[in-house]
Amino acid sequence: MLDLTRPTILLDETVARHNIKKMAGKARENKVELIPHFKTHQSQLIGDWFREEGVDRITVSSVSMARYFAHAGWQHITIAFPLNILEIKEIEKLASSVELTLLVTGISQIRALIAQVDVFVNVLIEVDTGDHRSGLPAADHHAIQQLIEALHGSQHRFKGFYSHFGHTYQASSVAEVTSLYQRSLKLLTDLRFVFADVRPEVHVGDTPSASLITDFTGVTAIHAGNFVFYDLTQVQIGACQEEDIAVVLACPVVAKNADRGELIIYGGGIHLSKEGMFDTGLQATVYGKSVFITKNGRSAPIAGCYVRSVSQEHGVVRVTAAIFAQVKIGDIIGILPVHSCMMADTMAGYLTYAGKKIDHFNACRQPGR
Amino acid sequence: MLDLTRPTILLDETVARHNIKKMAGKARENKVELIPHFKTHQSQLIGDWFREEGVDRITVSSVSMARYFAHAGWQHITIAFPLNILEIKEIEKLASSVELTLLVTGISQIRALIAQVDVFVNVLIEVDTGDHRSGLPAADHHAIQQLIEALHGSQHRFKGFYSHFGHTYQASSVAEVTSLYQRSLKLLTDLRFVFADVRPEVHVGDTPSASLITDFTGVTAIHAGNFVFYDLTQVQIGACQEEDIAVVLACPVVAKNADRGELIIYGGGIHLSKEGMFDTGLQATVYGKSVFITKNGRSAPIAGCYVRSVSQEHGVVRVTAAIFAQVKIGDIIGILPVHSCMMADTMAGYLTYAGKKIDHFNACRQPGR
Repeated sequence: MLDLTRPTILLDETVARHNIKKMAGKARENKVELIPHFKTHQSQLIGDWFREEGVDRITVSSVSMARYFAHAGWQHITIAFPLNILEIKEIEKLASSVELTLLVTGISQIRALIAQVDVFVNVLIEVDTGDHRSGLPAADHHAIQQLIEALHGSQHRFKGFYSHFGHTYQASSVAEVTSLYQRSLKLLTDLRFVFADVRPEVHVGDTPSASLITDFTGVTAIHAGNFVFYDLTQVQIGACQEEDIAVVLACPVVAKNADRGELIIYGGGIHLSKEGMFDTGLQATVYGKSVFITKNGRSAPIAGCYVRSVSQEHGVVRVTAAIFAQVKIGDIIGILPVHSCMMADTMAGYLTYAGKKIDHFNACRQPGR
Repeated sequence: MLDLTRPTILLDETVARHNIKKMAGKARENKVELIPHFKTHQSQLIGDWFREEGVDRITVSSVSMARYFAHAGWQHITIAFPLNILEIKEIEKLASSVELTLLVTGISQIRALIAQVDVFVNVLIEVDTGDHRSGLPAADHHAIQQLIEALHGSQHRFKGFYSHFGHTYQASSVAEVTSLYQRSLKLLTDLRFVFADVRPEVHVGDTPSASLITDFTGVTAIHAGNFVFYDLTQVQIGACQEEDIAVVLACPVVAKNADRGELIIYGGGIHLSKEGMFDTGLQATVYGKSVFITKNGRSAPIAGCYVRSVSQEHGVVRVTAAIFAQVKIGDIIGILPVHSCMMADTMAGYLTYAGKKIDHFNACRQPGR
């Protein structure tokens, strides 16, 4: 057994590699490119597992993360975040060593790229197809045309459209994901038709549809990332099975409360994040579900046992009477995350069951983050 | 103006020093000791500001944070988290260089302390007075007596009772905080009477009551921490005024959505944390409120402008039509945090308006966190 004394993410390398292999295979069969989002794992070593499956272009969520992976040898990087013109100098520097693809939503970003970035970059126009986070409304053909025209004749290349179907994260069935996917893709297909003269590519990004859709006609590339680890949210959506979750937070049990039938663990909001999920089975908001850590892995979720609240370093785990009697102070229990991207970001590193430490980009070492 | 390009916590040193001075003065007047919780700021330099106000004992939330502040010269440290017996070796090592005070809730923790920690430590029994997180139920005199007896004659010293009145964070008025405080303190006063022969001290910890209560009769020491920065949660409770909030996240505006009247900022869950708050004024869940950054500080919250959602690096800010017209892509706007402790933990560092960088314990540099 691993000698754990503090909250630690245990990573099942076999499961993660299987998740990567499956998604890479699916993309190949569908003749779409997989340009995986590395914001989930943020690790150079895990990046190499993708390379072994034939991946050679990646996606990140910040300029500093792009720099980290450029340093690790990746030559084609998409920064899937609206271009931050305040970082234009860092972007130009990076573009001189790797091929960058950037997302824009407004004319001021394109003007900055033309005026201040001499090195060629690819430009994707981000389009909102229902997620209502960032992106130009898909129906705003006029604004989109302005952006395409502004790029025309410049040193940069208009490559196509990017849309994150993030609204699929709110879905609760395969049918719902499929319906949202089809409606969103229809908007992109319309754009492709309207702007057929510039032959736009179509880039999409969410893990639920990447996992569940079987026909990717009309899509050029998939930028999903969460599938490398999956999590309870994806299980509830139906995008994966519980056994596909590759990460678990190992937490020391530090106290027990007999009155409430609860364990208090060392493992709180700074480890799991404060992202909760309304679990339709338990009919409760959960911040993770409990499993046992075994010699080379973990058990399935223990029925009726879940993290009901998190504060900074405490987690409060509701358990059954049988589990309460069985677990002792000083034991380690595992918590499956609600959202693996957030947990991975706060923890900034992994330990495999074989005892291998895996490093992480670790944004908080960066000045100003 | 500061040259900011990425999400950065701006710290108003004057406001933070004022908050510290005020709390230290209040403690002195009330003849209770202030043993401030450093988990909020986690910074050696900010720790020095407390020292200047006469503070010489501090509180932390983990063994690794205790080590960081021991290294910074603090000689009396309370680890206000249920003793993690898996870290007993690190605790013994630390106890040989600083005076430690530890929290216990069970007999197994006391047995571990007696069997494995030869160096003297102080022991506080953590008592639950209504928060329902950790701590022995205050009414469980039998269990408490067992713990006191187990310590008797050992190398360690039973010091008294510790209770975090965390339920005050759910309060929405001064009257409610006062009532919760009085009910919780009554339980501790009863314990003090029952166990009068061992003359227990009474240690309490939350920022709402530390800020609002004016008579601390019956209390030995206050371990609050959040008051150094305060935040929107404390404003809503009534524990501080909006101008007492000492930290703001400066965020680049990266996109605008005219249809929804929303700004998209570089500043998401990995910067602000995913802790939301139901704002009773706005009747909406908010993840922060917008302010303007000025030359040497910030404005008051801009009416009707707040962060309505956060994903990993994106924040979506709902704004009024006037603000939408005024703010440009590439501007910096400030976000007042819902919970400053969580934001400070994710960001791991500060910048003052004078341009001074302030370092942070930075838990994610620690192996295993």
